Amino acid sequence: MTTMELAERIVATPLESIPGPALVEAKRSLLNWVGVAIGAAQHPMVDMVLRVGRLHGAREDATVLGRGTKTDMFTAALANGISSHILDYDDTLLDTVLHPSAPVFPALLAYGETYGVSGGDFLAAFVMGAEVEQRIAQAIYPSHYDRGWHITGSVGAFGAAAAVGKLLGLDRTRMAYALGLAATQPLGMREMFGTFTKPYHPGKAAQNGLEAAFLAREGFTSSTRAIEAPRGFALVTSESPKFERLVDGWGETWEILNNSYKPFPCGIVIHPSIDGVMRLREKHGCRPESVLELELKVHPLVLELCGKKEPRDGLEAKFSVYHCAAIALIDGWVGPSQFDDAKVWAPETLALRAKVIARPDPAIAEDQVCVTAHLKDGSTVSQFVEHVVGSKHVPMTRDQLEKKFLSLTTSLSPERRQELIKTIWNFEVKSDVALMAALTAPDTPLSS
Amino acid sequence: MTTMELAERIVATPLESIPGPALVEAKRSLLNWVGVAIGAAQHPMVDMVLRVGRLHGAREDATVLGRGTKTDMFTAALANGISSHILDYDDTLLDTVLHPSAPVFPALLAYGETYGVSGGDFLAAFVMGAEVEQRIAQAIYPSHYDRGWHITGSVGAFGAAAAVGKLLGLDRTRMAYALGLAATQPLGMREMFGTFTKPYHPGKAAQNGLEAAFLAREGFTSSTRAIEAPRGFALVTSESPKFERLVDGWGETWEILNNSYKPFPCGIVIHPSIDGVMRLREKHGCRPESVLELELKVHPLVLELCGKKEPRDGLEAKFSVYHCAAIALIDGWVGPSQFDDAKVWAPETLALRAKVIARPDPAIAEDQVCVTAHLKDGSTVSQFVEHVVGSKHVPMTRDQLEKKFLSLTTSLSPERRQELIKTIWNFEVKSDVALMAALTAPDTPLSS
Repeated sequence: MTTMELAERIVATPLESIPGPALVEAKRSLLNWVGVAIGAAQHPMVDMVLRVGRLHGAREDATVLGRGTKTDMFTAALANGISSHILDYDDTLLDTVLHPSAPVFPALLAYGETYGVSGGDFLAAFVMGAEVEQRIAQAIYPSHYDRGWHITGSVGAFGAAAAVGKLLGLDRTRMAYALGLAATQPLGMREMFGTFTKPYHPGKAAQNGLEAAFLAREGFTSSTRAIEAPRGFALVTSESPKFERLVDGWGETWEILNNSYKPFPCGIVIHPSIDGVMRLREKHGCRPESVLELELKVHPLVLELCGKKEPRDGLEAKFSVYHCAAIALIDGWVGPSQFDDAKVWAPETLALRAKVIARPDPAIAEDQVCVTAHLKDGSTVSQFVEHVVGSKHVPMTRDQLEKKFLSLTTSLSPERRQELIKTIWNFEVKSDVALMAALTAPDTPLSS
Repeated sequence: MTTMELAERIVATPLESIPGPALVEAKRSLLNWVGVAIGAAQHPMVDMVLRVGRLHGAREDATVLGRGTKTDMFTAALANGISSHILDYDDTLLDTVLHPSAPVFPALLAYGETYGVSGGDFLAAFVMGAEVEQRIAQAIYPSHYDRGWHITGSVGAFGAAAAVGKLLGLDRTRMAYALGLAATQPLGMREMFGTFTKPYHPGKAAQNGLEAAFLAREGFTSSTRAIEAPRGFALVTSESPKFERLVDGWGETWEILNNSYKPFPCGIVIHPSIDGVMRLREKHGCRPESVLELELKVHPLVLELCGKKEPRDGLEAKFSVYHCAAIALIDGWVGPSQFDDAKVWAPETLALRAKVIARPDPAIAEDQVCVTAHLKDGSTVSQFVEHVVGSKHVPMTRDQLEKKFLSLTTSLSPERRQELIKTIWNFEVKSDVALMAALTAPDTPLSS
């Protein structure tokens, strides 16, 4: 299976043929992506790339999410790709650890806003872009990742190039050129985890993919065997690639249907405990003031990785099952603001946190928990979580995705946030990209 | 030896400490680089990247060589990096096959013209940039290249980042950030040879390195162990790297002193064959019409890299030892016009090309060849080339470099060409970058 065959599939598949369920998942991905990008839009590293980007020129074509400013298309793709990966809160295709949205949506948004694209075409192009990057990722995973590549960066440009190239109407050969330009510049090493350069990876991949599509449209040639050739992408960056994954079963199903969304911005092993406590609250009406003791039976790894009994700040609280269980019962949701230092030190938090007891239990699986609240009236309520929310078995509901979105977009007015949610849920029927982008501006635009 | 130690050396070495001979070689490199860039400035691929670059914005800070136009600094770095590698006629550090100028000068020129840099600082920064890229190349060569990386692209950004970072006055930590940003985006696979994407590699490396230096100045963090870490640049892209090469003997000598300049605009491994055929022609009066068979005993790499038996156009002919040997005997010289498509398809060329036989011979070194012409009269003439012209043993003279420059810059008026030569030979004493850049404009500026 070859680069040309993959290009052929992309070109031969009409945007209109993408089925409804894939478009729905694309909208869920979009809501999640816009939320996490707005949530980190004020980070200093976004200021930095915008300042450097401004040295390119002064065009104001494309929105920088959550800032109320525009910049040129390429810099916007870079900035939005970065901001959407800063919180490590974006979506994941679990079988390759690929975060599909962070490199593809920024390129599509920048292109779509600059040149005018309908919501429906935007979503369908995203499904195709995610399909391409994930198929390439599957072809080279795990040896590619094991060798040290940050797969979201290193295959991201393929997705961006395919998605934008599709909207540009590239023919088969030019689509192969675009894939070739993406292939020759894999980007992102895992050594960068923990630095600003980690989120730079999907941002630059988005920018490179966008550029690749535009260069290919010009007729800028590359190898049309870029992925499979002996000195091409797959064999230079991995071992024993599974080339059949490139096009096998293309169009029968869509990889985006396997997308998953992180419900909570903290250590993943804590997620079942949060989920269990929230269910106690929702289903059993459990409230902090009635609790004598909150008991968690957890997988032993939880205490090993996230057993901080008395976190000193928000960053430490992300690794404290005690803080997370307490705040979940108090607030009914765990988003970024639940890790504000003030929340960590609030008397109400401290009081309830002291009542949380976590016991390791080898009978509890990693995505399970058993939560029991011993109440002041002498009764107890218990909740067993068999599969944590956000897993393939229990996907985030539409309501939960909205809650996550709202928790991330507090820089926007409540009206705007609701309008954005509505716009995205109706994206394929009566919206366009520029309209959606305009809604991401905060009440007070940020400078730069 | 570590990334931080390398950053430390770069930062601690004053530009003024670069010795005279290294500056002289930098000027030879500069003359050669400006010539090859002007020589290809009208290629359609330069138009293409300028059109796409214009979508960034409208700044006119930096000259596009040989066109009489300016664009933004980053697009100029990309365009000039591309044009200087289109003809495959640029300089080479033979022990790694690295072309040191193509990724470093474009970044320096774009920066130097935009912000104002003296000729002396420009040359010294180039020496440092070339030093950094070549040391990193040596640390990972040959396994990196063998695996399929186009080393000029994949280490080029280090050189550009170090050179511009030096002029920006980065401190040690920020210099390490700049190197880290370069490390995480190695660029260029050998599969791209023969397509527009090959010259794109040093162009994009120049642009990435320039961006890395500016981002690092902002404080954009990356790993400070980017080169040596287990999931960092060297181990992700090569095997058994020689980390001691990063800083061993720093400042005792300068790698640029080993620079060599291609006499012929085609794959360097073909040069001995051309040299040998030209000597047969000059010394033995050998002519195409008298030849039955032209036999080349070559280093095995020649056929691996440049074994195209039936090139379809000028670009492919640059990787065809068969075309090059034939055309050298026909024309007695191999310059850019020997790769015109018409020349490739001329009946005379095809007839002689069919008589060329190339045999790999492990006893022949990379800069050697043994050429034998079997003549129609039954006799044979033979020529062994021990060291090819342009090699370390037989360097191009100043006069030859000027001739090469003049043959490449016919779009400029004779006065301008002479003025440019004079300016470059005096670059460190009484010139600046903007002045030199202005002299590269052709009599009739090109559009776009």
